[in-house]
This record gives sequence, C-alpha cells and structure tokens, in this order.
Amino acid sequence: MSASPELGVCYYPEHWPEDMWISDAQSMYKNGIRWVRIAEFAWSRIEPEPKKFDWKWLDKAVDILGNAGLKIVMCTPTATPPRWLINQMPDMLAVDQNGQKRKFGSRKHYSFSHKGYQKESQRITQAVAERYGNNSFVQAWQTDNEFGCHETTYSWCQSSLQEFRNWLEVKYQSIEKLNEEWGNVFWSMEYSSFEDIDLPNLTVTEANPAHHFAFRRFGSDQVKNFNSQQVKIINQFSPNRPVSHNYMGHFVEFDHYKVSEDLDIAAWDSYPLGYLQNMQSIAREDKKLLFECYNIGDPDFQAYHHDLYRGMGRLWVMEQQPGPVNWARYNPIPLPGAVRMWTWEAFAHDAEVVSYFRWRQAPYAQEQMHAGLMHCDNSPAMGSKEALQVSKEIQEIELPPTQKAEIALLHDYEACWMTEIDGQTQDFHYTRLMLDFYKSIRTNGGSLDIVGKNTDFTEYKLIIIPSFVHLDEEIFSRITLSGAKILAGPRTGVKTNEFQIPHNLSLEGLGFKVTRVDALPQELPIEVEWKGIKGHMNVWREQGQCSGTSDGKGIDDMPVVTTGNKGSYLCGWPDENLLKAIMKEQMLSAGLTTVSLPEYLRVRQRGNLLFFTNYGKQKVSIPKEYNGEFLLGQRELAQSGLAILKST
Amino acid sequence: MSASPELGVCYYPEHWPEDMWISDAQSMYKNGIRWVRIAEFAWSRIEPEPKKFDWKWLDKAVDILGNAGLKIVMCTPTATPPRWLINQMPDMLAVDQNGQKRKFGSRKHYSFSHKGYQKESQRITQAVAERYGNNSFVQAWQTDNEFGCHETTYSWCQSSLQEFRNWLEVKYQSIEKLNEEWGNVFWSMEYSSFEDIDLPNLTVTEANPAHHFAFRRFGSDQVKNFNSQQVKIINQFSPNRPVSHNYMGHFVEFDHYKVSEDLDIAAWDSYPLGYLQNMQSIAREDKKLLFECYNIGDPDFQAYHHDLYRGMGRLWVMEQQPGPVNWARYNPIPLPGAVRMWTWEAFAHDAEVVSYFRWRQAPYAQEQMHAGLMHCDNSPAMGSKEALQVSKEIQEIELPPTQKAEIALLHDYEACWMTEIDGQTQDFHYTRLMLDFYKSIRTNGGSLDIVGKNTDFTEYKLIIIPSFVHLDEEIFSRITLSGAKILAGPRTGVKTNEFQIPHNLSLEGLGFKVTRVDALPQELPIEVEWKGIKGHMNVWREQGQCSGTSDGKGIDDMPVVTTGNKGSYLCGWPDENLLKAIMKEQMLSAGLTTVSLPEYLRVRQRGNLLFFTNYGKQKVSIPKEYNGEFLLGQRELAQSGLAILKST
Amino acid sequence: MSASPELGVCYYPEHWPEDMWISDAQSMYKNGIRWVRIAEFAWSRIEPEPKKFDWKWLDKAVDILGNAGLKIVMCTPTATPPRWLINQMPDMLAVDQNGQKRKFGSRKHYSFSHKGYQKESQRITQAVAERYGNNSFVQAWQTDNEFGCHETTYSWCQSSLQEFRNWLEVKYQSIEKLNEEWGNVFWSMEYSSFEDIDLPNLTVTEANPAHHFAFRRFGSDQVKNFNSQQVKIINQFSPNRPVSHNYMGHFVEFDHYKVSEDLDIAAWDSYPLGYLQNMQSIAREDKKLLFECYNIGDPDFQAYHHDLYRGMGRLWVMEQQPGPVNWARYNPIPLPGAVRMWTWEAFAHDAEVVSYFRWRQAPYAQEQMHAGLMHCDNSPAMGSKEALQVSKEIQEIELPPTQKAEIALLHDYEACWMTEIDGQTQDFHYTRLMLDFYKSIRTNGGSLDIVGKNTDFTEYKLIIIPSFVHLDEEIFSRITLSGAKILAGPRTGVKTNEFQIPHNLSLEGLGFKVTRVDALPQELPIEVEWKGIKGHMNVWREQGQCSGTSDGKGIDDMPVVTTGNKGSYLCGWPDENLLKAIMKEQMLSAGLTTVSLPEYLRVRQRGNLLFFTNYGKQKVSIPKEYNGEFLLGQRELAQSGLAILKST
Repeated sequence: MSASPELGVCYYPEHWPEDMWISDAQSMYKNGIRWVRIAEFAWSRIEPEPKKFDWKWLDKAVDILGNAGLKIVMCTPTATPPRWLINQMPDMLAVDQNGQKRKFGSRKHYSFSHKGYQKESQRITQAVAERYGNNSFVQAWQTDNEFGCHETTYSWCQSSLQEFRNWLEVKYQSIEKLNEEWGNVFWSMEYSSFEDIDLPNLTVTEANPAHHFAFRRFGSDQVKNFNSQQVKIINQFSPNRPVSHNYMGHFVEFDHYKVSEDLDIAAWDSYPLGYLQNMQSIAREDKKLLFECYNIGDPDFQAYHHDLYRGMGRLWVMEQQPGPVNWARYNPIPLPGAVRMWTWEAFAHDAEVVSYFRWRQAPYAQEQMHAGLMHCDNSPAMGSKEALQVSKEIQEIELPPTQKAEIALLHDYEACWMTEIDGQTQDFHYTRLMLDFYKSIRTNGGSLDIVGKNTDFTEYKLIIIPSFVHLDEEIFSRITLSGAKILAGPRTGVKTNEFQIPHNLSLEGLGFKVTRVDALPQELPIEVEWKGIKGHMNVWREQGQCSGTSDGKGIDDMPVVTTGNKGSYLCGWPDENLLKAIMKEQMLSAGLTTVSLPEYLRVRQRGNLLFFTNYGKQKVSIPKEYNGEFLLGQRELAQSGLAILKST
Repeated sequence: MSASPELGVCYYPEHWPEDMWISDAQSMYKNGIRWVRIAEFAWSRIEPEPKKFDWKWLDKAVDILGNAGLKIVMCTPTATPPRWLINQMPDMLAVDQNGQKRKFGSRKHYSFSHKGYQKESQRITQAVAERYGNNSFVQAWQTDNEFGCHETTYSWCQSSLQEFRNWLEVKYQSIEKLNEEWGNVFWSMEYSSFEDIDLPNLTVTEANPAHHFAFRRFGSDQVKNFNSQQVKIINQFSPNRPVSHNYMGHFVEFDHYKVSEDLDIAAWDSYPLGYLQNMQSIAREDKKLLFECYNIGDPDFQAYHHDLYRGMGRLWVMEQQPGPVNWARYNPIPLPGAVRMWTWEAFAHDAEVVSYFRWRQAPYAQEQMHAGLMHCDNSPAMGSKEALQVSKEIQEIELPPTQKAEIALLHDYEACWMTEIDGQTQDFHYTRLMLDFYKSIRTNGGSLDIVGKNTDFTEYKLIIIPSFVHLDEEIFSRITLSGAKILAGPRTGVKTNEFQIPHNLSLEGLGFKVTRVDALPQELPIEVEWKGIKGHMNVWREQGQCSGTSDGKGIDDMPVVTTGNKGSYLCGWPDENLLKAIMKEQMLSAGLTTVSLPEYLRVRQRGNLLFFTNYGKQKVSIPKEYNGEFLLGQRELAQSGLAILKST
Repeated sequence: MSASPELGVCYYPEHWPEDMWISDAQSMYKNGIRWVRIAEFAWSRIEPEPKKFDWKWLDKAVDILGNAGLKIVMCTPTATPPRWLINQMPDMLAVDQNGQKRKFGSRKHYSFSHKGYQKESQRITQAVAERYGNNSFVQAWQTDNEFGCHETTYSWCQSSLQEFRNWLEVKYQSIEKLNEEWGNVFWSMEYSSFEDIDLPNLTVTEANPAHHFAFRRFGSDQVKNFNSQQVKIINQFSPNRPVSHNYMGHFVEFDHYKVSEDLDIAAWDSYPLGYLQNMQSIAREDKKLLFECYNIGDPDFQAYHHDLYRGMGRLWVMEQQPGPVNWARYNPIPLPGAVRMWTWEAFAHDAEVVSYFRWRQAPYAQEQMHAGLMHCDNSPAMGSKEALQVSKEIQEIELPPTQKAEIALLHDYEACWMTEIDGQTQDFHYTRLMLDFYKSIRTNGGSLDIVGKNTDFTEYKLIIIPSFVHLDEEIFSRITLSGAKILAGPRTGVKTNEFQIPHNLSLEGLGFKVTRVDALPQELPIEVEWKGIKGHMNVWREQGQCSGTSDGKGIDDMPVVTTGNKGSYLCGWPDENLLKAIMKEQMLSAGLTTVSLPEYLRVRQRGNLLFFTNYGKQKVSIPKEYNGEFLLGQRELAQSGLAILKST
C-alpha cells in the first residue's frame, strides 16, 4: 500500500432529517473525510414490511454523499433483522448458554445456524447488492456488523444443535471415530449415534474438552459460512469492490483467519479506552496500566490489533473512538491529542483508512452517551478538531509502501480456545500472553508481523511462538525450514489436533519436554535467575526434562530457557523485565538491532519512516539511536505526542 | 403536628396462644405502647379455605388489644396470599428477570399486574374493611406490606406483558409515535404494532433505555394502581381512619410520591443497621462509615428517609429496629442507647408514631433471629428498656408543631431510574448522591425539607437539585419563580421526558452547557481547586461551556461551580469536604446561618427545639453557637447520645 | 487394625490397550501397590447396549490384575449411566436449583430420587456382583463414586418433589402437624395438603428454614437409600467382602454417619492442594495459609478428615493426590516429599490402605491435566518415586493397633446444615469452626477422635462440642454421663430438632444462656481478655446471662468462658491464639498433658508411636518433651518431613 491513507466516518442518514444530509455530506468533506459507511442497521427502513422495499431514501442518501465527493462503504443490514422477521420465524433467535431464548429489542438477535435466517440474510444482501452493486459512489462493502459481539458467536438453540450434529458427522464420519478421538470411554460418555450428542452446556460438571473444542470449531465455521454466503452475492453483483468486515478488539471466539479468506479488507473497530477497561476485567488486572493509561489506552493494544488484522488482509479501522464511549464500566474522556495519535498509529501500521464512529452523536436509544465527531446539536466535538488536523497532515507526508517485518509472532485462534477450555489456572489468558510477548519485542524497538499458521514463514529472521498448544510436525517443519531463529513459549506442542496429549511430548529440537505444570496465582511466582537477571515465572511454570542446552534456573531447579538444534523454548511465563531481556538476546542473536525504549514510548517502522507514540504521562525523549529528519513532531514527546522520523 | 408523639408495636396474635394475648396487651400498655399493628400476614388464618372466613380469633384479638387501651393499625393481608389461591390461579405468581416463575413458600408472591389477583386483593380488603371499618379500636390502616420488597416491583410475566402493552397504547396512542419517541430506528428496532413489544429483559445487549424507562414507569403505576384499589375500599368502609403504607429504606423502584397521593400516612420501616450494610453493598463502599457506625447506623440515613417520606404525608415509622436483625450480610447488636436515639430522631423529624418491629421474637420460621422487644421466652430484650425510657420522656416534653424548612432538596424517582438505566459509570448511585448533598447541608447545621417536583417551592430560601436528569422548563420555571437561591448538580436537565438528549442542553440561567462527561472510577478523581480549597470531583465530572460566571477550576480547565442569572451549577460530584464548603457558601448567600458540626454530630430543628444526635465513637460537645435550655441531655454527648435544646 | 497398611491405585483398563495390562499390573506390584480399584466409570463398556453385556474385557482385566498379586476393589459403575439409558428415561437427569435440567456429557447425571434409575442402579449392581461377587481376586467393593460431587446431592426435579412429599407425609403424618412444626402460620405459608408443598427453591425471598432443613434431611436420606440398595445386593452376592464408598473433603451435604451405617469401610479421596484452594474459596479466606501451604496443603485438613471418617468405619484413602490436579482454581505441583508425607499421615491416623489416583495420567477427556503415578507415556511421574519409598518403609515398621483417644470432638451434619441455612453472618462456616477447634487441640500436642452424636462417649476425658446447634437433652445427658470434662462452643443447643428456638435456651449446666448474637465481619472482632491473654471473638459473639462462673471478659462486658456444674461454654468464636490457650487449660484440667507445637508441626499418636509431620517452610525441631527411638526421620524436620518416634 503506497497510496495516501484516508479518513472515513460512520453515518446514519436514517437517523436525521433529510434536509440535513447535504450539509452533513459537505461538512464531512470539508473536515477531510473521504469515506462514509452507511446502512448496517437500516433493514427496518430498507424493507419496512416483508418484501416491500423502500429504496428512495437510501438512493437519495447515496446520491448526496457521493456527489459531495465521498466514497461509500455500503453494508448488509443483517446485524439487525426487523421485528416482522422474528414474527415469521421466532426460532431464529439465539438461545443463551443457560437455555434462555434471547429476545428482540437490541441487535444481533439471530442464530448463525438458522437455515431460515441464512436465507433471509442472502435475500436482503442480494437486494442491497443488486441495487447498489454497480453504483459508482459505492466503493466498498461491509458484511453485517461486528460478528460475535455481545456473546453471539455461539447459540445454544435447536438449529445450532442440528447443525452441530451434521458438522460432526461430516468431520468424523462414524460415531466410533468420534468416541475414540474424544476419548469418550473416560466417563462412559460414549455415543451410539450422532443424534445422541448434545451441545456442551448445562452438563453436571465440565463436558469433555474435546466436545467443547469441537463446538468452538463448529461455531467458528458457522460465522465463516454466514459471512461467505453474503460475500459471494456481493462479489457477484458488485464486482471490483473490496468487501470488508469490522472485527473487534481482544475478541477471539471465531477464527478470523478463516473468515478473512473470503474478505478483501480486514477491518476492525478500535476503542482504546473501552477496550482497556474490558481487557483489564477479563485478564489478570494491571491496576498500574489501568490507572496510568485510563484516558489514552494501552500502549500496545491498538498496535497489536493493527498487526494482527493486517496479517489477514488490507487493514482498515472501520470504527475509531473519537471521544468518550458509553459501554465500558467507566467511560473517561480521551486525553487531548489521543484521537490524532491513535489515527496516525493506525497509518503507521499500514491502515488504508481510519473511519470514525460516528459522524454525529445520536440523541436517542442505546448509544446516546457515545461521542461522535459532532455533538447532537451539530456543533463540533473534540474528535473533529483532531480528525481535521490528521486530514491535513496526511496530505503533507508521503507514506512508503508497507513491507514484511523481520520478526514474526505466531497467533492461533484454536490454540487460544484450548487454553480457555482447559485453563489449569484461572489466570492463564491467551491474549494477555500474546500482548506480553508483543510488548517485549516492541520495548526493544522491534517492529513485527503477527502471522497465522498458514503464513509464508520464509525471510523472517526471528519467529516467536508464544503459545501454540497443538503445534504439529507439519507446521513446525514449515517454521523451522524458514531458517529463522525460533523461540517458543509455554504450552506449545502439548496437545493434538483433537485435544489429547500427544504420544510424544518432546518438542523436537527445542530442548525441553514438559512433564508437569505449576499453575499458580500471581502472588506465588517462581523465582528464577537468567544470565544475572533475577526475575519470576508468573501464572504458568513448566517442569520437565532438558534435552538441549539450558540457560537460567529457578528455585525449582528447572531451566528458564532451553535450546535445541531447532530453536529455543521458554519454560514458563516470565515477568515483563525478564521477558524483555530474553527477547533482546533473541533479537540480537537473530542479527537484529535493539533499542531499549522508555516504558510508554513505542516505535513502528514503515519503510524508511519511524512512527513514535508516547502513551505515558511523562515527557520522553526519543533515544539517540534514532536519527534522521522529523517529518512530524520532534525528539521530545509529551503524552499523546507523535513523531515521524525519516531515517537517514 | 403538635400532638404528642406515640410509640407502637407490631404484633401477631396468630403466632401466640390466645391465653397470652391479654397479658401481652397489658404489658404493651405498661411499656408505654399506644399503637399496635396487626394482621398483615394473617390471610391464611382469616380465610383458611376459599370464602370460609374465620373472624373469631381476630375479633377477639382486636377486642383484647383495644380494651387494653391500644389503638389498632389494621392491615390488609395481601402481602401473603394463601396457598389455596395459588392453586386457583398459578399464573398470579410473578416471574423473575430470567424468566423463572417465583414460587410460593415465602411472601410477596404475586404479580401486581394480574387481574385475578387484583380482584382477590380487593375482595379480601373489602372483607376486612367491612368487618373492622367501624370498629372503634381500629384507628388506622396499612395496605399490604413493604411494596416492592424482595425485588417484586416488576414481574416479567404474561400479565405484566399484556398490561405493559395496554399501558403503552394508552400513553403513545400510535405505534409510530412510540417508535419515534424511543428512537427505534436506531437499530431497526421499529415495531409495527403494540403486540410486537416485549418486556425489556433477556435482550442480546441492553434494550433501548426508553424501553426500560417506560417499563419502570409502567411498573410504578402498577403499584400505585394496586394500592389505590385497596385504599378506595378502605375509605369507603372505614371513613375517617387514616390509611398508610410502610415504605422501605433506600428503595426507589416505584414513585412513592404517586403512591402516596392515595394515602394519609407515609410510613416507613427503619432498620439502621441492616440498611447500613445493604446500602454499602449497592453503592460505592465506604469502609470507614461501615466499620465506625456498624452498630449505630449512618448518621444521615434515617434522617434522610424521615425527611423524604414526610414530604409525602404524615410521617410514621411503622417498623423500628429494636435489636439485631437477621437479614443483612452481618447482623450486629445495636449499641446501647441506639434504639432510644433512633426513636427520638424520628420524632425530631416530625414522626407521629414510632412502632417497633416486633413485640416478641418469633421462635420459628424465617425471622427467628430477628429481635423483638421481648425475647421468645417473654423476658424483656434490650429494646424494651429503651422504648420504655422514650415513652416516659415524651410525656415530659411538648413538641412544637412542624414547620416548613428554609432549604429544599429536590428528589425525583424518575431521575433516579434514568441514572440507573444509563449509568455511564458503574459507580453513579442516585441515593448516594442525594445523601452526599443531604449530609453537606446537615454538617453545616442546616435543617431541610426533601421535596418532589410537584411541591410548592415558594418560601424556600435555598433549593438544591442534586440531579434532576429530565428537569424541564415547566418545573424549572416554578422553581426559579420561588425566588430562592438555586444550586443544581451534575446530570441535571440533560434528558427529555422520553429519555432523549434534548435539542438544547443549556440549562438556561445556570451558566453551563455540558458537552461531554468524564465517568471515572473512584481511584481516578479529577483534582480541582475552589476558593482556595483543594479537592476532587469523584465518579462524575462534566466538561462543557460556561456561559455565566465560574468559580474554581480543575486540572481539566473546567469550572467547579458556574452561576447564571437563575442559579448555580455544580459541574461534577465533589468530595465531602469540598461539597460542604460549597454548600456553606450557598447557605450563607441565601441568608441562612451555618454552624460547622463535628463529623458524626447532627442537629434537626423542629420549631424552637433543636435535637442533637451523636452517631460517633467520640464524645462531642455541642457547638457554642447553640444556646438555650437542655430539655434532655446536655452539651456533651457520648455515642448514641441525644440532647434536646430549647433555643432562647 | 494392626495389620500392615498397604498401598493401592486406581486403574482404568478400559482406557488402555489390552497389551499393556500385564506390564501395568506387574509394574504396580513392583512399585509396592497391593490394591487396585477398577470399573467405577465403565458402564458403557460393561453394557454397551441395553441388556447386552460385555464381560470379556473385564474378566480378563480382573484375571491379569489378580494374577499379578493385586487385590481388587470392584466398583458399581452407577456414577456414569450410559447415554442409552438417558434416551430411555430422560427424566432421570437431575434438575439444578434454577430449574434447568442437567445434561448428559460428564458424570453424576442422575437424580437420587428417580425410581427408574434406582432400579437400573440395582440391576447393574446385581449384574456386576453376580459376575465377580465370589471372584477370589475381588477383595472389596466401592459403591458409585463420590456421592454428591458437583452439587448432585439435591435434585430439583419432579421425582425429587414427589419423593419429598412422600417423605414429609411419613415424617409428619398430618399436614397440620407439619404446619405447626414449621411455624407456617408465620407468613400465611400454611398448606392444606402434602401435595401443596414445593421444593424450597425459587421462592421470592428465603423459604422457611424448617422447609430447607427438611429438604436437606430428605436429600441426605435419598443418598443413604441409594447406597443402601446397592450394598444389600453386594452383600448378598459377595459375602465377606467389605463395602466402601469414597467420600470427599469438606463435603457436608449428606449425613455421612447415616450412609456409613451400611458400609464397612469409610473411604475418602484426599487431594490436599485442590482442597486447600477450594476450602479457602468457600470459607473465610486465609491468605497466609493459602500462600504458605499452597504446595503442601493445610496442616490440619487431611488429619481432620482422616479422624472424621475413621469415626464411621474402617478408614481407607481411596484416592490420594499423587501430583498436580486439574480442577482447582490454581493447580500447583506438590512439594517434593509431600506425597510420601500425606501417605504416612493417613497411616498415622489408622488408614488401612492409601490408594493413589490414578495409575497413569489419561491423555484425553476431562482429567488429562491430572497427574498419575505414571506419565501418559508410561514413564514414572514424581508420585511413583515417593509411593515406592513408602511401600518399602511400611515393611520396616510395625504399626501398633489403633486405640480410642482421650479427647472427642463432636461433629454433626445436621448442625452444619442449620448454620448454613440460617447463617446470621455470611462468614459463619461450620467446617472452618470445626477445623479451628481441631487445630487448637493439635497445636497443644493432642490426638483426638472425631465422633458423631451416636458414639459411645464413655472413657473420654475431654469432650469438645464446637457447635451442636440442636443439641438436645438426650444426647447431652449421654455426654455428661461420660464423666468427661466438657467444652461447648457457640450456637450449641439453640434450636430444636425442627429448627425452632427452644422454650428454654439455657444450656443446663454450662453456665450461660444466650440472649442475642453479634454477627460481625472479620474486620470487626470483639476485644476480649481471658486470664491475661488479650484476644478477640471473631465472626460470632454471644451476649446473654451467665448462671455459673465466668472467666474473661469482652469490651461488651460479656464473659469469654462460663462454667456450670456440667461443663464449660465458649461465648463466641475465639481467635487462634486465644482458642489455643483456652484449649490448653481444658486439656490440663482434664488431666491430659499438653505440648505447644510450632506453627506447622503436628503430631499424631498411634499406640506407642508418634508421627510427626512438618507442613511449614521452616525447619523445625521436635520438642524435647517427646523422647524415644526414631523409627523414621529425626528430631529436626524440613518441610514435608516426617518422623516416627517410638516412645519410651
């Protein structure tokens, strides 16, 4: 991507009087907005009664927006099926884990597995795609909205049950095979027919992890299938327009790599302050981070997701927080400058478009406390000033094309599900672990790619595998064949693809075979020493046999890092300081340079440009190691400060 | 009210052998008791089988009590419908928010909306009223018992759904109007018929706040309707007897002002120790208060509720905690003297009667660990000694008539619901805010009235509006016309009556227009300085435009207090110390005098008498500013100490 | 018991290829294992289809194991009814407290009250007993597995409801009697027929405690009945083989004394690390203990349960934790030596057999992270080394016969249920209280018996009654007739057998009559002083009238200990230090000797042998008071150290 990045906005013409549309469109353009996303919640206005369409208003809105110079992202409205559809088929509503039907009255009230709703989803998609597929103002598409939001990936309804049984039958062919793969002999859980199998909720104690795991895979496939059905229709009726979906932050319920196979653009919705609150409430709490960054966000969280999703397609931020939101436990006001910094940070990580949510704050319904670029009364809100600034800055700076990084961080959704299903400690949190590794590279000055298991591993100099639970020989050999230096972390290679312990637990060539696990609360870390650095293994510590060389030692006499002929292995979850030191050594020995960054300063390299962001309260100075011309900002950065350095 | 206050007691003749009744009645009288409440849980004894009444025992009990000199509060027994009624109409049982039918086996097992039960409630009310309406011993009535207790205000049953739809149809007339008022276009939530509308539970994510708000209003109206049906019958068959209902503490689920319109006496049940525990578990926790006052109660909580309910009718305390209770998380023994102090405090706040719950501790069933004035074995418990003391003291002291205060604190149930529905931070708690404002007036030595929006605002010198979310022009103009000084607090005037953001957010004449909100955890307050006092805004802080004069400033450059031509506005929720200082200035500038009271000392003025209470562990001295003759107590007060000063 | 103790193991031949069975069996024997428990989860392999039995594999496994020298504990497989049985009678599944049916897919998925399943349980029991009852290798039996595990004691299903009504009718004969005993007049809860009575869940507020209590008793009887049905059949078909059931730790939902009446062996499953975590999560948390003992366990917890269950029959540990488990919140690795120490500790407390769970770690299904003696790949795990060591040590040391202790600690399940039903503070936890008393005896060097109310109290010198809520005259007189010194603790004798407050609250002869209770959070203890020792009453403090002598006094002017002509009474729950001092005095005055032990050192006397265990991180020295010959270990003990001293 070497074109200039652009700004966008989410807009709901159906929420405002028609006589505001023209001035809204013009105002957007004047504010530097070039993209506008519409219609993702508009089904009840597009089709007020079954099969009676009202295109007039949407035609007009498209015309007005397009004529004002805006490119349109048209959406399928399937996230909000209208009330009359529920009357027609009440069983399309999802059922929650406790067996309760989830009612109409908000959004996302459907089961992915309901055949009737799938048909309706295709019908309305086709209607919209036929109408606007060749409209010259419509330049891109979005399917549905935030798949899985509000715990909707899985439904515990009859449709889901029936499809799950079908899915299992396709996968396992015979019930005997399923019994064997799941180990159902364990508690006399053997089935004599696929019709015997229930969804894995409401069991007396936990269901078989293989049962849970199969249901997760099934659920993920249902999302992929639902999305794929829409994409096929859009591609047919709207050729040459890229199709996107807007993913979420720290959301791992379905395999985004698989869903992205059908998409062109892997977009996500970036709400740094809301996500900081939520992340802290689901992973182990970090009060320091929570309090110090409450109005600016986690310094690694946004970058991590940019890198994660750009590993799946062209990157967009489809919704960017422009002010306070309404849905976190606490909803602070972003620090002045934060909206600008977040936007630039997305561009640094190769985003093509950053689109603010939303143009104007809604005066009614569920999100009336969610800021827009404009207040309800159409006066400009804090975000609009910063968006305008960015729109000017991006015209001044030419961004170089994106390039492959030298470091790869391996991410896998199925591995994540395995750690969730079989936690062994309530504090093991996959994304928390990924972020810790991600941070350790970044605080050493590194830029990296986050990649899936199907990536091309060649050309990387260092491949980090924080935790790939069911890493198998095929994948591992592709990784090792890359010739890169390899560091694998705890819980790697300890399960088969069917959630069993493999016959051979030894990770060939990493020098360690785990024999037992110390799964501990944070207050009880294991003291270790590694190359003169005293530190701790937190949450997770492995004991086993070292078959290679070993570095460092814990008070349990176990190594910190082992190394075999294929790479190194980390026998636990190190604390931040220790992990940073280990990562530095890995980077150096892979032939990379490192620069130790201050706590809240981050850098991202894009071609010959370096983008610096300061998330910390203190002013910091960009280290002397970085030289060149400042295209934006300067060496000293205040909080929410940004600098772009053209390296010389 | 200038008659002498009196003591009462709650008594259950059906729990005790008939041969104890006479001595019980005589013993009550000897202990200074003049009122006795009976029969609120006695339906199964009054009507053991459908339509077969057994009046004998109750006739006898009434006779014995009345002949002993006691005045009787007769109750309708509708809080405990008998088992045979559930057999007749099982769908009268309420359904909880998760869709589960709530079973028989305790109390309050009915849905307010069930037409069949409404008929039964009227039938049994009429039966009791016909029987005792003109009985000379029966001097007052109570309807049902503690409306809404145990989360029973709302039922999620079919009756409730049907009545809700009817209620909506009456209110909105057309479904188009409802869609527009609720903003249902937002997520394609538009309905085509009132029959489409569900109760707002079990939705995928939160339902429309307007939907929730309508359901709250509906639920409140159902309580009013249920009570009103009974009152009409009682008034018909028992003319000239006042009718009461016993409300609860920190309970806000229905609009008590509306229910009170049909009542003569606004009674409440005062359990200082239980409420202290409960309040701390629902609002932000205050460990210091919880621990220092665990056996005496919050120094403002009782007074607040006395003032709240006396704003709705003649004030009684229908149930007064006489010893340890059984229903809080922890159930300490009240400090010696506390029962006496609480009783006198009620009289200070214009209570006509304080009635202890209960005469004798029950040896069986749910409340056997709840103290009475007497132990199970009929020996006197700690409360009886203190009750006897009060009964003597009240004969010595003539209480002056109650008078209108100079300060009014505006309370509104709908405003409270709005803050609950749309919290924006999990720490915003309406009653907590009210109590903070209440306390700030009291610790400056002030006495006040708590008033509803329909009150007569004239003659007040200072009107405090802690948070009236949907304050509209009509009410605000009545307030400003009073000529009083006005101080409004955060979240005032920011919504319409239909839970939308109004077109004009500016509170005309208060000098501030809010543009965004910082909704923060307690650990992250905003530092401010006001007239040399350094303090904080906690939980809630507003940013916006000042259109008047402004005092104080935060590190966010926003004012602390603004003032326009109609009054002042507080741009957030100040800490205790800062709020006290601001309130002092308000009081002084309204021409009132202030006296700064020690932390746990409080004073209430009734006519020319001043009632002092000390809730603190330390001995305190009543400030020199207060002079006169001590009718009870003296200048120095130990914990649970009480003094009555006749001002000179 | 004077025979040598033996080791056992839990084995699942159905989980492994038949060609491994012989080497497994031989390996067990070589490792010193003499008992092997099999088949408790094997129903689906014994009877793969209805009435089609497959005995071949099990016959072969029995043969192989037996021929290798192992004695077999054969189990009934009723803990895991197969899927086809659920298809036959879906209503055999239990229903949870919220009314949700609990699905097939794990284990224990049945209602104890389902008549159809009771028949099936008897049918499969008879099939297994007929087949192996006289097999010479089968030397003992186990019924089902861990009754009540995963909250399965109570089912809220229709079968349970019907049986409960029948049970009530048998117990109370007439509905009038039930109404009276329960005090149903209280809230018009009177029933006119047994058919009116529901299960006590889902009521609006708490159901009558007598209702709950009856349901607990009923539920406990259902377990006894279910077990008894199986035992009768086993006794018929397998004469002279002892029958056991494996109980759990801190599990009190049914009356184990009653169930044990039908058993020969009272076994339990000892998981010191998992139980430490769980216990801390249900009772008041003790971070110090949790953190200091996280990888070795509570120093009293195992001993307590050994003493508890050996009070009901011959003691076995049927499952002994051999390494990390998988089911606690956190799952640490046991400290080296811990497995050996736990095993010896069981023998010290008269266990005949300690059986490790399990032979080899399962590579699939729910417990794949649960350690066995062997790893999945058949290499020895940490536990096997320690088991082997014990197997050698027990051959060297002859254990003397067990003997009656001089101190008895009275335990009662019904009393426990009463404190759970009617907590009065959320921190009162019966087992926590028992453990505090237990510890206070042990840290004074005492060994003791835990006994039920039907025990023979004669010959004890000191009888401790920590809390026997409904202690009645009959039991109390049997206790006092023993002539032992008696100390009763808080909440003793304050309820009748029907959960009412008795007419006379005075515990005749203990010198105290409680009149009210201070039920406080831990942060608000009552300061007391007793014989120069300053301490606190925590959680629970009683006020009342002293009718005997009194020792110590609190700031509430109430005594610490009272003494009447029959014994002493503790008016609250003392802190650890104070309780230890009081217990010392009790022991001394009962003519026993005391030795104050270091914090984590414990001793158990068995005949002339003293067994010392050190659960603490610090090395400790066995006090000089103990002399003799060390058969194992020495005077100084490191953590997890064990010493056996033959006293001289």
